[in-house]
Amino acid sequence: MSRLDSFIRRLEAQRAVLNHAAALIADIDGPIIELGLGNGRTYDHLRELFPAREIFVCERRVAAHPDCIPPDHLLLLGDMFETLPAARGRLQGRLALAHFDAGTGDAVGNLRLAAGLRPLILPLLRDGAVLATQQAMDGEGLTPLPLPAGVPDGRYYLYRRS
Amino acid sequence: MSRLDSFIRRLEAQRAVLNHAAALIADIDGPIIELGLGNGRTYDHLRELFPAREIFVCERRVAAHPDCIPPDHLLLLGDMFETLPAARGRLQGRLALAHFDAGTGDAVGNLRLAAGLRPLILPLLRDGAVLATQQAMDGEGLTPLPLPAGVPDGRYYLYRRS
Repeated sequence: MSRLDSFIRRLEAQRAVLNHAAALIADIDGPIIELGLGNGRTYDHLRELFPAREIFVCERRVAAHPDCIPPDHLLLLGDMFETLPAARGRLQGRLALAHFDAGTGDAVGNLRLAAGLRPLILPLLRDGAVLATQQAMDGEGLTPLPLPAGVPDGRYYLYRRS
Repeated sequence: MSRLDSFIRRLEAQRAVLNHAAALIADIDGPIIELGLGNGRTYDHLRELFPAREIFVCERRVAAHPDCIPPDHLLLLGDMFETLPAARGRLQGRLALAHFDAGTGDAVGNLRLAAGLRPLILPLLRDGAVLATQQAMDGEGLTPLPLPAGVPDGRYYLYRRS
Protein backbone atom coordinates (compact mmCIF):
# COMPACT_ATOMS: atom_id res chain seq x y z
CA MET A 1 0.00 0.00 0.00
CA SER A 2 1.45 3.36 -1.03
CA ARG A 3 1.57 6.40 1.21
CA LEU A 4 -1.18 7.87 -0.97
CA ASP A 5 -3.37 4.81 -0.30
CA SER A 6 -2.71 4.91 3.40
CA PHE A 7 -3.32 8.66 3.64
CA ILE A 8 -6.68 8.27 1.88
CA ARG A 9 -7.61 5.45 4.26
CA ARG A 10 -6.68 7.58 7.25
CA LEU A 11 -8.81 10.51 6.07
CA GLU A 12 -11.76 8.25 5.20
CA ALA A 13 -11.52 6.66 8.65
CA GLN A 14 -11.48 10.08 10.27
CA ARG A 15 -14.55 11.20 8.37
CA ALA A 16 -16.42 7.96 9.11
CA VAL A 17 -15.60 8.23 12.82
CA LEU A 18 -16.68 11.88 13.07
CA ASN A 19 -19.92 11.25 11.17
CA HIS A 20 -20.62 8.31 13.47
CA ALA A 21 -19.79 10.38 16.55
CA ALA A 22 -22.31 12.98 15.39
CA ALA A 23 -25.02 10.34 15.49
CA LEU A 24 -23.84 9.11 18.89
CA ILE A 25 -24.19 12.53 20.50
CA ALA A 26 -27.39 13.58 18.73
CA ASP A 27 -29.25 13.56 22.06
CA ILE A 28 -26.43 14.99 24.17
CA ASP A 29 -26.24 18.76 24.49
CA GLY A 30 -22.98 20.62 24.73
CA PRO A 31 -20.11 22.10 22.78
CA ILE A 32 -17.42 20.24 20.82
CA ILE A 33 -13.67 20.52 21.17
CA GLU A 34 -11.09 19.93 18.44
CA LEU A 35 -7.64 19.34 19.91
CA GLY A 36 -5.40 20.83 17.24
CA LEU A 37 -6.56 22.94 14.28
CA GLY A 38 -3.81 22.18 11.76
CA ASN A 39 -4.93 23.18 8.25
CA GLY A 40 -8.56 23.40 9.43
CA ARG A 41 -10.02 20.63 7.24
CA THR A 42 -11.30 18.57 10.16
CA TYR A 43 -12.58 21.69 11.89
CA ASP A 44 -14.50 22.55 8.72
CA HIS A 45 -16.05 19.09 8.74
CA LEU A 46 -17.04 19.50 12.39
CA ARG A 47 -18.67 22.84 11.55
CA GLU A 48 -20.75 21.08 8.90
CA LEU A 49 -21.71 18.28 11.26
CA PHE A 50 -22.54 20.59 14.16
CA PRO A 51 -23.80 23.90 12.78
CA ALA A 52 -25.71 24.69 15.97
CA ARG A 53 -22.96 23.90 18.50
CA GLU A 54 -20.01 25.88 19.77
CA ILE A 55 -16.78 24.29 18.55
CA PHE A 56 -13.76 25.09 20.69
CA VAL A 57 -10.34 24.61 19.12
CA CYS A 58 -6.96 24.18 20.76
CA GLU A 59 -4.01 25.33 18.70
CA ARG A 60 -0.53 26.45 19.52
CA ARG A 61 -0.14 28.70 16.48
CA VAL A 62 -2.90 29.18 13.90
CA ALA A 63 -1.79 28.32 10.36
CA ALA A 64 -5.08 27.13 8.86
CA HIS A 65 -6.83 28.12 5.65
CA PRO A 66 -8.34 31.62 6.21
CA ASP A 67 -11.89 30.18 5.85
CA CYS A 68 -11.21 27.68 8.64
CA ILE A 69 -10.16 29.87 11.53
CA PRO A 70 -12.36 29.72 14.62
CA PRO A 71 -13.74 32.90 16.17
CA ASP A 72 -11.47 34.32 18.87
CA HIS A 73 -13.79 33.46 21.75
CA LEU A 74 -13.70 29.73 20.82
CA LEU A 75 -9.96 29.51 20.19
CA LEU A 76 -7.78 28.18 23.02
CA LEU A 77 -4.50 29.56 21.77
CA GLY A 78 -1.30 28.14 23.20
CA ASP A 79 0.05 24.89 24.62
CA MET A 80 -2.86 22.49 25.33
CA PHE A 81 -1.18 21.48 28.56
CA GLU A 82 -1.78 25.04 29.73
CA THR A 83 -4.95 26.06 27.86
CA LEU A 84 -7.02 22.96 28.76
CA PRO A 85 -6.53 23.33 32.54
CA ALA A 86 -7.15 27.08 32.17
CA ALA A 87 -10.44 26.40 30.34
CA ARG A 88 -11.76 24.18 33.13
CA GLY A 89 -13.73 27.04 34.62
CA ARG A 90 -15.94 27.41 31.58
CA LEU A 91 -15.85 23.90 30.09
CA GLN A 92 -15.79 21.47 33.03
CA GLY A 93 -18.39 18.70 32.53
CA ARG A 94 -19.91 20.49 29.50
CA LEU A 95 -18.39 19.03 26.32
CA ALA A 96 -20.43 16.56 24.24
CA LEU A 97 -17.56 15.54 21.96
CA ALA A 98 -13.80 15.84 21.89
CA HIS A 99 -11.67 14.94 18.87
CA PHE A 100 -7.93 14.38 18.92
CA ASP A 101 -5.65 13.64 15.98
CA ALA A 102 -2.02 14.33 16.73
CA GLY A 103 -1.45 14.53 12.99
CA THR A 104 2.17 13.48 13.11
CA GLY A 105 3.91 10.25 12.15
CA ASP A 106 5.78 10.09 15.47
CA ALA A 107 4.03 7.07 17.02
CA VAL A 108 5.86 7.15 20.36
CA GLY A 109 5.45 10.91 20.74
CA ASN A 110 1.75 10.68 19.84
CA LEU A 111 1.10 8.03 22.47
CA ARG A 112 2.88 10.10 25.09
CA LEU A 113 0.87 13.15 24.06
CA ALA A 114 -2.41 11.20 24.24
CA ALA A 115 -1.53 9.89 27.71
CA GLY A 116 -0.76 13.41 28.86
CA LEU A 117 -3.96 14.86 27.41
CA ARG A 118 -6.27 12.19 28.79
CA PRO A 119 -6.49 13.60 32.36
CA LEU A 120 -6.93 17.11 30.95
CA ILE A 121 -9.80 16.20 28.59
CA LEU A 122 -11.68 13.81 30.88
CA PRO A 123 -12.97 16.46 33.35
CA LEU A 124 -14.31 18.58 30.49
CA LEU A 125 -16.57 15.81 29.12
CA ARG A 126 -20.12 15.50 30.36
CA ASP A 127 -21.63 12.11 31.16
CA GLY A 128 -22.35 10.27 27.92
CA ALA A 129 -20.01 12.48 25.90
CA VAL A 130 -17.92 10.89 23.15
CA LEU A 131 -14.16 11.04 22.71
CA ALA A 132 -12.81 10.27 19.21
CA THR A 133 -9.06 9.92 19.03
CA GLN A 134 -6.42 8.52 16.70
CA GLN A 135 -4.40 7.50 19.75
CA ALA A 136 -5.73 5.06 22.35
CA MET A 137 -6.84 6.64 25.65
CA ASP A 138 -8.07 3.52 27.47
CA GLY A 139 -8.70 3.68 31.19
CA GLU A 140 -11.15 4.57 33.94
CA GLY A 141 -13.97 6.90 32.96
CA LEU A 142 -13.89 6.01 29.26
CA THR A 143 -15.82 3.03 27.89
CA PRO A 144 -14.63 1.88 24.45
CA LEU A 145 -17.26 2.03 21.69
CA PRO A 146 -17.28 0.02 18.45
CA LEU A 147 -15.96 1.79 15.36
CA PRO A 148 -18.20 2.45 12.37
CA ALA A 149 -18.19 -0.07 9.51
CA GLY A 150 -15.08 0.05 7.35
CA VAL A 151 -12.75 1.50 9.97
CA PRO A 152 -10.21 -1.13 11.03
CA ASP A 153 -9.39 -1.67 14.70
CA GLY A 154 -6.51 0.46 15.87
CA ARG A 155 -6.90 3.18 13.25
CA TYR A 156 -9.19 5.23 15.49
CA TYR A 157 -10.59 4.95 19.00
CA LEU A 158 -14.06 5.91 20.21
CA TYR A 159 -15.02 6.18 23.87
CA ARG A 160 -18.10 7.07 25.87
CA ARG A 161 -17.54 9.12 29.04
CA SER A 162 -18.87 7.03 31.91
CA MET B 1 -19.25 19.58 1.23
CA SER B 2 -16.56 20.17 3.87
CA ARG B 3 -12.93 20.75 3.07
CA LEU B 4 -12.28 17.26 4.45
CA ASP B 5 -14.80 15.79 1.96
CA SER B 6 -13.37 17.72 -0.92
CA PHE B 7 -9.78 16.83 -0.03
CA ILE B 8 -10.67 13.13 0.10
CA ARG B 9 -12.37 13.41 -3.30
CA ARG B 10 -9.32 15.12 -4.76
CA LEU B 11 -6.97 12.40 -3.49
CA GLU B 12 -9.29 9.61 -4.64
CA ALA B 13 -9.49 11.21 -8.08
CA GLN B 14 -5.72 11.46 -8.24
CA ARG B 15 -5.27 7.82 -7.34
CA ALA B 16 -7.95 6.69 -9.82
CA VAL B 17 -6.36 8.74 -12.60
CA LEU B 18 -2.85 7.44 -11.91
CA ASN B 19 -4.01 3.84 -11.70
CA HIS B 20 -5.87 4.32 -14.99
CA ALA B 21 -2.83 5.96 -16.59
CA ALA B 22 -0.76 2.93 -15.60
CA ALA B 23 -3.09 0.72 -17.62
CA LEU B 24 -3.02 3.17 -20.55
CA ILE B 25 0.78 3.05 -20.84
CA ALA B 26 1.19 -0.65 -20.12
CA ASP B 27 2.48 -1.20 -23.68
CA ILE B 28 4.50 2.01 -23.95
CA ASP B 29 8.11 1.91 -22.80
CA GLY B 30 9.81 4.82 -21.15
CA PRO B 31 10.36 6.63 -17.89
CA ILE B 32 7.82 8.63 -15.85
CA ILE B 33 8.08 12.20 -14.66
CA GLU B 34 6.43 13.68 -11.56
CA LEU B 35 6.30 17.47 -11.76
CA GLY B 36 6.62 18.42 -8.11
CA LEU B 37 7.51 16.08 -5.25
CA GLY B 38 5.77 17.80 -2.33
CA ASN B 39 5.45 15.43 0.60
CA GLY B 40 6.21 12.45 -1.66
CA ARG B 41 2.88 10.61 -1.32
CA THR B 42 2.10 10.68 -5.04
CA TYR B 43 5.68 9.76 -5.89
CA ASP B 44 5.37 6.77 -3.56
CA HIS B 45 2.22 5.71 -5.40
CA LEU B 46 4.00 6.04 -8.75
CA ARG B 47 6.84 3.87 -7.43
CA GLU B 48 4.30 1.19 -6.55
CA LEU B 49 2.60 1.45 -9.94
CA PHE B 50 5.86 1.46 -11.91
CA PRO B 51 8.46 -0.56 -10.02
CA ALA B 52 10.44 -1.27 -13.19
CA ARG B 53 10.54 2.25 -14.62
CA GLU B 54 12.73 5.24 -13.91
CA ILE B 55 10.71 7.97 -12.23
CA PHE B 56 12.15 11.45 -12.66
CA VAL B 57 11.01 14.11 -10.21
CA CYS B 58 11.10 17.89 -10.52
CA GLU B 59 11.30 19.77 -7.25
CA ARG B 60 12.51 23.17 -6.26
CA ARG B 61 13.45 22.19 -2.70
CA VAL B 62 13.05 18.67 -1.36
CA ALA B 63 10.89 18.52 1.80
CA ALA B 64 9.34 15.06 1.42
CA HIS B 65 9.13 12.19 3.87
CA PRO B 66 12.62 10.62 4.10
CA ASP B 67 11.30 7.35 2.58
CA CYS B 68 9.99 9.23 -0.48
CA ILE B 69 13.06 11.02 -1.77
CA PRO B 70 14.14 10.09 -5.30
CA PRO B 71 17.72 9.03 -5.98
CA ASP B 72 19.95 11.93 -6.96
CA HIS B 73 20.30 10.90 -10.60
CA LEU B 74 16.50 11.07 -11.09
CA LEU B 75 15.94 14.34 -9.23
CA LEU B 76 15.67 17.51 -11.34
CA LEU B 77 16.38 19.97 -8.54
CA GLY B 78 15.46 23.60 -9.08
CA ASP B 79 12.92 25.69 -10.97
CA MET B 80 11.06 23.51 -13.51
CA PHE B 81 11.26 26.33 -16.03
CA GLU B 82 15.02 25.80 -15.98
CA THR B 83 15.38 22.09 -15.18
CA LEU B 84 12.91 20.82 -17.82
CA PRO B 85 14.64 22.57 -20.75
CA ALA B 86 18.01 21.48 -19.33
CA ALA B 87 16.82 17.84 -19.22
CA ARG B 88 15.83 17.85 -22.90
CA GLY B 89 19.10 16.24 -23.88
CA ARG B 90 18.42 13.04 -21.96
CA LEU B 91 14.59 12.99 -21.91
CA GLN B 92 13.43 14.34 -25.27
CA GLY B 93 10.75 12.07 -26.79
CA ARG B 94 11.36 9.39 -24.15
CA LEU B 95 8.77 9.82 -21.36
CA ALA B 96 5.79 7.45 -21.23
CA LEU B 97 3.88 9.41 -18.57
CA ALA B 98 4.01 12.84 -17.00
CA HIS B 99 1.97 13.83 -13.94
CA PHE B 100 1.34 17.37 -12.80
CA ASP B 101 -0.50 18.53 -9.68
CA ALA B 102 0.27 22.10 -8.74
CA GLY B 103 -0.93 21.25 -5.26
CA THR B 104 -1.98 24.78 -4.38
CA GLY B 105 -5.39 26.39 -4.06
CA ASP B 106 -4.40 29.32 -6.27
CA ALA B 107 -6.57 28.58 -9.33
CA VAL B 108 -5.33 31.45 -11.48
CA GLY B 109 -1.68 30.83 -10.62
CA ASN B 110 -2.11 27.09 -11.28
CA LEU B 111 -3.55 27.71 -14.75
CA ARG B 112 -0.73 30.09 -15.61
CA LEU B 113 1.78 27.52 -14.36
CA ALA B 114 0.15 24.75 -16.43
CA ALA B 115 0.19 26.95 -19.55
CA GLY B 116 3.86 27.69 -19.01
CA LEU B 117 4.78 24.06 -18.42
CA ARG B 118 2.90 22.68 -21.43
CA PRO B 119 5.54 23.58 -24.06
CA LEU B 120 8.29 22.31 -21.77
CA ILE B 121 6.68 18.92 -21.13
CA LEU B 122 5.37 18.24 -24.63
CA PRO B 123 8.78 17.64 -26.29
CA LEU B 124 9.74 15.15 -23.58
CA LEU B 125 6.75 12.86 -24.23
CA ARG B 126 7.06 10.05 -26.71
CA ASP B 127 4.26 9.29 -29.18
CA GLY B 128 1.37 7.67 -27.35
CA ALA B 129 2.59 8.88 -23.95
CA VAL B 130 0.02 10.00 -21.38
CA LEU B 131 -0.13 13.31 -19.55
CA ALA B 132 -2.20 13.40 -16.32
CA THR B 133 -2.73 16.84 -14.89
CA GLN B 134 -4.97 18.62 -12.40
CA GLN B 135 -4.88 21.70 -14.65
CA ALA B 136 -6.11 21.65 -18.25
CA MET B 137 -3.39 21.63 -20.91
CA ASP B 138 -5.55 21.49 -24.04
CA GLY B 139 -4.01 22.21 -27.42
CA GLU B 140 -2.11 20.82 -30.35
CA GLY B 141 -0.20 17.61 -29.74
CA LEU B 142 -2.40 16.45 -26.86
CA THR B 143 -5.60 14.49 -27.45
CA PRO B 144 -7.99 14.47 -24.47
CA LEU B 145 -8.77 11.03 -23.02
CA PRO B 146 -11.83 10.06 -20.97
CA LEU B 147 -11.38 10.01 -17.20
CA PRO B 148 -11.80 6.79 -15.24
CA ALA B 149 -15.19 6.06 -13.68
CA GLY B 150 -15.99 8.16 -10.64
CA VAL B 151 -13.75 11.11 -11.50
CA PRO B 152 -15.90 14.12 -12.37
CA ASP B 153 -15.05 16.24 -15.42
CA GLY B 154 -12.75 19.10 -14.62
CA ARG B 155 -11.18 17.52 -11.54
CA TYR B 156 -8.38 15.98 -13.57
CA TYR B 157 -7.29 15.95 -17.22
CA LEU B 158 -5.84 13.06 -19.19
CA TYR B 159 -4.20 13.45 -22.59
CA ARG B 160 -2.50 11.21 -25.12
CA ARG B 161 0.55 12.63 -26.90
CA SER B 162 -0.29 12.65 -30.60
